[in-house]
Amino acid sequence: MSTRFFPTNAIAFEGFASTNPLAFRHYDRNENLRGKRMEDHLRFACAYWHSFAWPGGDPFGGQTFDRPWFPDRMSDEMAAAKLKADIAFEMFTTLGVPYFCFHDADVRPEGSSFAENTANLEIMTEIFAERMEQTGVKLLWGTANLFSHRRFMSGASTNPDPDVFAYAAATIKTCMDATHKLGGENYVLWGGREGYETLLNTDLAREDQQMGRMLNMVVDYKHKIGFKGAILVEPKPQEPTKHQYDYDVATVYGFLKRHGLENEIKLNIEQGHAILAGHSFEHEIATANALGIFGSIDMNRNDYQSGWDTDQFPNNTPEVALAYYQILRAGGFTTGGTNFDAKLRRQSLDPVDLLAAHVGAMDVCARALKSAVAMLEDGGLETALKERYAGWSDPFAQKILSGDCDLEELVDHVEKKDLNPEPVSGKQEILENYVNRYV
Amino acid sequence: MSTRFFPTNAIAFEGFASTNPLAFRHYDRNENLRGKRMEDHLRFACAYWHSFAWPGGDPFGGQTFDRPWFPDRMSDEMAAAKLKADIAFEMFTTLGVPYFCFHDADVRPEGSSFAENTANLEIMTEIFAERMEQTGVKLLWGTANLFSHRRFMSGASTNPDPDVFAYAAATIKTCMDATHKLGGENYVLWGGREGYETLLNTDLAREDQQMGRMLNMVVDYKHKIGFKGAILVEPKPQEPTKHQYDYDVATVYGFLKRHGLENEIKLNIEQGHAILAGHSFEHEIATANALGIFGSIDMNRNDYQSGWDTDQFPNNTPEVALAYYQILRAGGFTTGGTNFDAKLRRQSLDPVDLLAAHVGAMDVCARALKSAVAMLEDGGLETALKERYAGWSDPFAQKILSGDCDLEELVDHVEKKDLNPEPVSGKQEILENYVNRYV
Amino acid sequence: MSTRFFPTNAIAFEGFASTNPLAFRHYDRNENLRGKRMEDHLRFACAYWHSFAWPGGDPFGGQTFDRPWFPDRMSDEMAAAKLKADIAFEMFTTLGVPYFCFHDADVRPEGSSFAENTANLEIMTEIFAERMEQTGVKLLWGTANLFSHRRFMSGASTNPDPDVFAYAAATIKTCMDATHKLGGENYVLWGGREGYETLLNTDLAREDQQMGRMLNMVVDYKHKIGFKGAILVEPKPQEPTKHQYDYDVATVYGFLKRHGLENEIKLNIEQGHAILAGHSFEHEIATANALGIFGSIDMNRNDYQSGWDTDQFPNNTPEVALAYYQILRAGGFTTGGTNFDAKLRRQSLDPVDLLAAHVGAMDVCARALKSAVAMLEDGGLETALKERYAGWSDPFAQKILSGDCDLEELVDHVEKKDLNPEPVSGKQEILENYVNRYV
Amino acid sequence: MSTRFFPTNAIAFEGFASTNPLAFRHYDRNENLRGKRMEDHLRFACAYWHSFAWPGGDPFGGQTFDRPWFPDRMSDEMAAAKLKADIAFEMFTTLGVPYFCFHDADVRPEGSSFAENTANLEIMTEIFAERMEQTGVKLLWGTANLFSHRRFMSGASTNPDPDVFAYAAATIKTCMDATHKLGGENYVLWGGREGYETLLNTDLAREDQQMGRMLNMVVDYKHKIGFKGAILVEPKPQEPTKHQYDYDVATVYGFLKRHGLENEIKLNIEQGHAILAGHSFEHEIATANALGIFGSIDMNRNDYQSGWDTDQFPNNTPEVALAYYQILRAGGFTTGGTNFDAKLRRQSLDPVDLLAAHVGAMDVCARALKSAVAMLEDGGLETALKERYAGWSDPFAQKILSGDCDLEELVDHVEKKDLNPEPVSGKQEILENYVNRYV
Repeated sequence: MSTRFFPTNAIAFEGFASTNPLAFRHYDRNENLRGKRMEDHLRFACAYWHSFAWPGGDPFGGQTFDRPWFPDRMSDEMAAAKLKADIAFEMFTTLGVPYFCFHDADVRPEGSSFAENTANLEIMTEIFAERMEQTGVKLLWGTANLFSHRRFMSGASTNPDPDVFAYAAATIKTCMDATHKLGGENYVLWGGREGYETLLNTDLAREDQQMGRMLNMVVDYKHKIGFKGAILVEPKPQEPTKHQYDYDVATVYGFLKRHGLENEIKLNIEQGHAILAGHSFEHEIATANALGIFGSIDMNRNDYQSGWDTDQFPNNTPEVALAYYQILRAGGFTTGGTNFDAKLRRQSLDPVDLLAAHVGAMDVCARALKSAVAMLEDGGLETALKERYAGWSDPFAQKILSGDCDLEELVDHVEKKDLNPEPVSGKQEILENYVNRYV
Repeated sequence: MSTRFFPTNAIAFEGFASTNPLAFRHYDRNENLRGKRMEDHLRFACAYWHSFAWPGGDPFGGQTFDRPWFPDRMSDEMAAAKLKADIAFEMFTTLGVPYFCFHDADVRPEGSSFAENTANLEIMTEIFAERMEQTGVKLLWGTANLFSHRRFMSGASTNPDPDVFAYAAATIKTCMDATHKLGGENYVLWGGREGYETLLNTDLAREDQQMGRMLNMVVDYKHKIGFKGAILVEPKPQEPTKHQYDYDVATVYGFLKRHGLENEIKLNIEQGHAILAGHSFEHEIATANALGIFGSIDMNRNDYQSGWDTDQFPNNTPEVALAYYQILRAGGFTTGGTNFDAKLRRQSLDPVDLLAAHVGAMDVCARALKSAVAMLEDGGLETALKERYAGWSDPFAQKILSGDCDLEELVDHVEKKDLNPEPVSGKQEILENYVNRYV
Repeated sequence: MSTRFFPTNAIAFEGFASTNPLAFRHYDRNENLRGKRMEDHLRFACAYWHSFAWPGGDPFGGQTFDRPWFPDRMSDEMAAAKLKADIAFEMFTTLGVPYFCFHDADVRPEGSSFAENTANLEIMTEIFAERMEQTGVKLLWGTANLFSHRRFMSGASTNPDPDVFAYAAATIKTCMDATHKLGGENYVLWGGREGYETLLNTDLAREDQQMGRMLNMVVDYKHKIGFKGAILVEPKPQEPTKHQYDYDVATVYGFLKRHGLENEIKLNIEQGHAILAGHSFEHEIATANALGIFGSIDMNRNDYQSGWDTDQFPNNTPEVALAYYQILRAGGFTTGGTNFDAKLRRQSLDPVDLLAAHVGAMDVCARALKSAVAMLEDGGLETALKERYAGWSDPFAQKILSGDCDLEELVDHVEKKDLNPEPVSGKQEILENYVNRYV
Repeated sequence: MSTRFFPTNAIAFEGFASTNPLAFRHYDRNENLRGKRMEDHLRFACAYWHSFAWPGGDPFGGQTFDRPWFPDRMSDEMAAAKLKADIAFEMFTTLGVPYFCFHDADVRPEGSSFAENTANLEIMTEIFAERMEQTGVKLLWGTANLFSHRRFMSGASTNPDPDVFAYAAATIKTCMDATHKLGGENYVLWGGREGYETLLNTDLAREDQQMGRMLNMVVDYKHKIGFKGAILVEPKPQEPTKHQYDYDVATVYGFLKRHGLENEIKLNIEQGHAILAGHSFEHEIATANALGIFGSIDMNRNDYQSGWDTDQFPNNTPEVALAYYQILRAGGFTTGGTNFDAKLRRQSLDPVDLLAAHVGAMDVCARALKSAVAMLEDGGLETALKERYAGWSDPFAQKILSGDCDLEELVDHVEKKDLNPEPVSGKQEILENYVNRYV
């Protein structure tokens, strides 16, 4: 492609004082934090779908974006797919993000058969491999879109029709192959239609069994082909379905445990989905860490006053800082990273909007990461935590936890010591003020 | 007590046409449904706390109820406790409910030490035993209040102070003893303060370990004393805490599985808590049935427009019918029952309000039960379900489920058959209309 | 059209015992209730858009419905529009609904200019006039779609670009003309994009002035052309925008009053929008009645667990009964009616689903109407209300209300009488039980 | 009082680098911003009720705080009220806040009659006058608690019993007198029980009339006594009642307009209440400014994941900055100010928690104010706004707004110019990035 889509070909770090809307003020990829480059901490990825496939529609209106690769501008679908890929990589390199993510349906035309879909995907995989080679951009994760096409309207693995299950399974295989070929560091499953619209037509136990089977096959195939990345499930409570089985982190944990998958599968946690489930983002991350299933994040907020998935770019630094704090205190990302599963508002029509949205989001994350690092290095929160639970180091407390103690022994203990414990301040406001020193 | 508190001493079944506000129009306890008396299907219980201990306060105002046993009317606390018990049993017998439920703190004065609490509880247990003997009213479940006293402000089993853990454990033991002595059919644990106000001062993994330990001790003690009832955990997502660990059915399942308790503990599911967690009541029941952990229900609705626990008496028959349908299709209650964990609105000052609220609620449940029975006997929903999933009886589909199939074989299958599955109507509106023939 | 789309050509009333899914069990249009035919009470209308224009998409998936008039089946847009109209009228007559409603964009192809849109609309208006003449179906209301096309993405009357305002105004004029020509009984304005995505780019006062101007022009034009129907505004709090200016009934009242329109414009109230705004449906109706601005209703529920507009067919009779009770006690509909602004679930693919959904909804409304009539005729609620406020008939109370009294006189009154008012039961549960005798 | 309650007697400004939890890092009261001292911009006030009257209870538990003036520590109620006042002023001066706010019920014992209440209030008013004289602390506003006592359980001005109306009116008079005497700069009305629990027992039109009457009497009395402060109504959508009449800013505007009060009464807007009503805080402030009824703010956030009023101290600077930006761009506070209607978490037991919570909150506000000032001085947002609406300066656009234009003329205009307006980017992300340069 000879002409550029975006108004600049590189976003530079210009420091805090810069007023250039197309420069980083906080994201300095080489800045060293705790012995690691900022880029290696954050591991940014751009999402192909929202940035390049979504036309700007919502339930009350259609396309607003005017993109040269859209069907109203270009009728040759494969040529359009290639142009889209060119411009996507133009954005990745302009931003300097190390990773991208995609679904099959984002990158290849929908064919009239499974075989044609597979062939289309293989062509695009070749093209991606070439672009990745040229640019150094890597694949954070690949995934299959098993929710947009009408064949999946009643679910993929949980469909009442086993043919749909088979079609979904086959599609996953092709997407795992593409991800493996491209050196993807993870493979993600989001079950957008794995759930129900009404319990009246739904057999929960049966669908649970189907979904468990599918995930076991995915794990088996991963091992068979020697894919070294992580398999990640992405929780969401609802939308498009009334209820989704992967409701939140705790729900997915129970599912994995039930199907013997808790050591094989980790989670991709999205801020917006956390909020829809009634949780804060840091809650979902901390829960996954406590359960040993944290994998990666989708860094995109929902509007607190809207009851649907708004997928906005992050812009509240204090909130993002608490998320990274939870990630860092458990050791930081391994295979995972920070994917912007975020979309422009549909009124943000211009190419510069797309670029600026990512610039702003990356800066928010960089600033938040630095805050999180500072809190961790200062150690005030960890010290407060240690002090709060200090009593549990006591030998009798340790005995309680060891399992070598029963209710009757505790009655004796209470009676003999005439225990009447006096409550101790939880110091919430003091800890919140402490955080505000860093964010 | 010589004078009655309530304006009548028996609520009779008068049939559909009755306009008597203190008569049943639907609840005919001896009506036979599927070979069982209506009373034995519904297994109604009244909650001691809301009906006899709650003074009518809310976060913006204090006591509104004027009850003879309240501290402003009676200074001898033990005498007040006895009067309260007399009037509670007056209500149970007037309504003709077979069961009641209580926390320790509802029924005995708060003493100045653990020993005094225990002694007070034992006295009240004797009095209950006597009243139960006289009236035939039974105990559906007992439980310990480990959330109201300030010592539990930072949790009971999950408290940072092991002395509080010990105090809580000892209290549970005394309440299990009382429950066992009174022939209680279940023992319930609601972890009202097992959660957090802020992640900043909370160690999730540590608190999870503490809570797992406590529940294992409870189960051990149950077996030791030969208590034959079920141990039930009651999920709630939040309130009073920002986050409660027993968020919903799926979350508790994961917790039980993690601590090896999934075959020892079942759930007590409340409509209002389901709604606070973003679920319908029937969803939570159906989920518990699918996971094999359904136990009992608290039948009290929340207002859909209020974001806190309103604990109102049920009044929407179609909703209640769907709940009972899920219970019946899995076989109905065993040790569990229908507990009204419901409170009057604080403006409903009169004794007749308390009686009428229960009469209306029992009638709603009776009517809903009959609707559920009729749907089950007609079988239309089950037939529709069977048809919808019929494809899974196919040998190849069975092979998929058996585990003897992998992704590659499914690719072959899709390619060979050139599968391109056509979606089939989910018939939601037709099924909803079907339900409306019965509710 | 020679072939029928629907599996039957008439839905008959078969009475309560019928199990025919394509028969009415409650809706007997000629049944006399309080001197009026049921049909004339309910004044049912079908919405053209959801039933005939919506392809079954949602934010995560595309078209699921296969309709002969959809672009993938028929490339001649005007011929498709005519076929769609034929089938729409087939449904109206099959159901026996007296009314329908439409937006311009539902019924005519989108042209390449305003003039072409107008010409297309005029052709379709002729066709409608003919079908209406043939069938007796009438137009409850017409409206302009000023939210789907990208030109309206930043609002219609509140657009920052006055050209869009002009385009919107001109479009409204053509739609009012069409409505007037077809004898429409109302003209509706729903401001789906009159609101904002972010306050950062929004001037509230300026947009309020623009919207006030537009509505005044609408009212002026109504009088100029002698349109006798009502102008109705439809409140909604959000979606598609983050905030919509017509948030709820009370908000629209303030807007109308500010622009001197409170005697010219009434409201079209939708159950789903009420819920999104944090209100019950009956609240919004009762509020509109209290403010003298009640007009018409959109009878479609939202799912209580979903935070977006689900536009489902009504199925909870007790809730619908309370809505009709509020309508009836204020005198019933005048120009307004019961419009099903409801859509199938996207998995309900079959023509029979569309028919059955309306049949079920009409039956729910009929049953609810009968309950509301029964409550009104019994009069128990009105009597209770009268008794509750009886004290205000007292001469001194009347003096307070008259304005002939000030704070100082009330201090005297309280002191002289040493007033210390004792609260009286609000009897909420007793009233709820009363309602349950009828629903 | 000889001993101090708090661990320090003055909080100093120590600058950004300070790690002293009892020092200001941002609040430098004398810092000059746009020609005004920071103190005069922010006009901080402490709320008497949460800090000194609330015992730490919630719906599931009782008192947690141990304060020397609480009933369990001190039986002489008037002596306790005096001690409470001493310690309250100790906090005001330690923090250096210029203002406080109170309800009658916070500061005086509840008497057995209206006369006794009045006498108690007068004594406390004298004591306050003295303390204010000594310390220089002023009264931002006074108010009457017409929601906690059981006599108000069914409302104050909207009570079905006119005696309660009279009692409420008389109480307001005494509180206006106290406020006037103390030089209060505003008088606030929060209608905590002006609403309903169920529509079944409620006459909306009648209660609206009663409430309109009360507010007119309040305004009349204000003028009669020459009170120069503003009368403020505080919106809240619900809690304690299911629905409160003062739902949000737009609703109160409609009410004021209906009763001819829109030029007499302004609003006191609370962040937490905004969120409960489905709005952002800045939305409510901007709406009040657009409608000309902005008065003052309660600066306390609700938890986004909790559906009730959590009244937490503010801690998210970017959110608070947007609120102050809306206040400043409309000219800043006149009689209003920043009241912390915030309470400690009930686990925050220690006096230092109460002090630190205010210190942190004041710092968040100071930092946010400085951000807002910087954005205003830079002018980028205002410039963007001006550009976005620039088309409306066009003569024809001005003609549209002037009213001298009708729908037909606009059709002509569209047709003649063959208008087909092209949408323009709303630049939301770019504007959000801009804000992030300042917060």
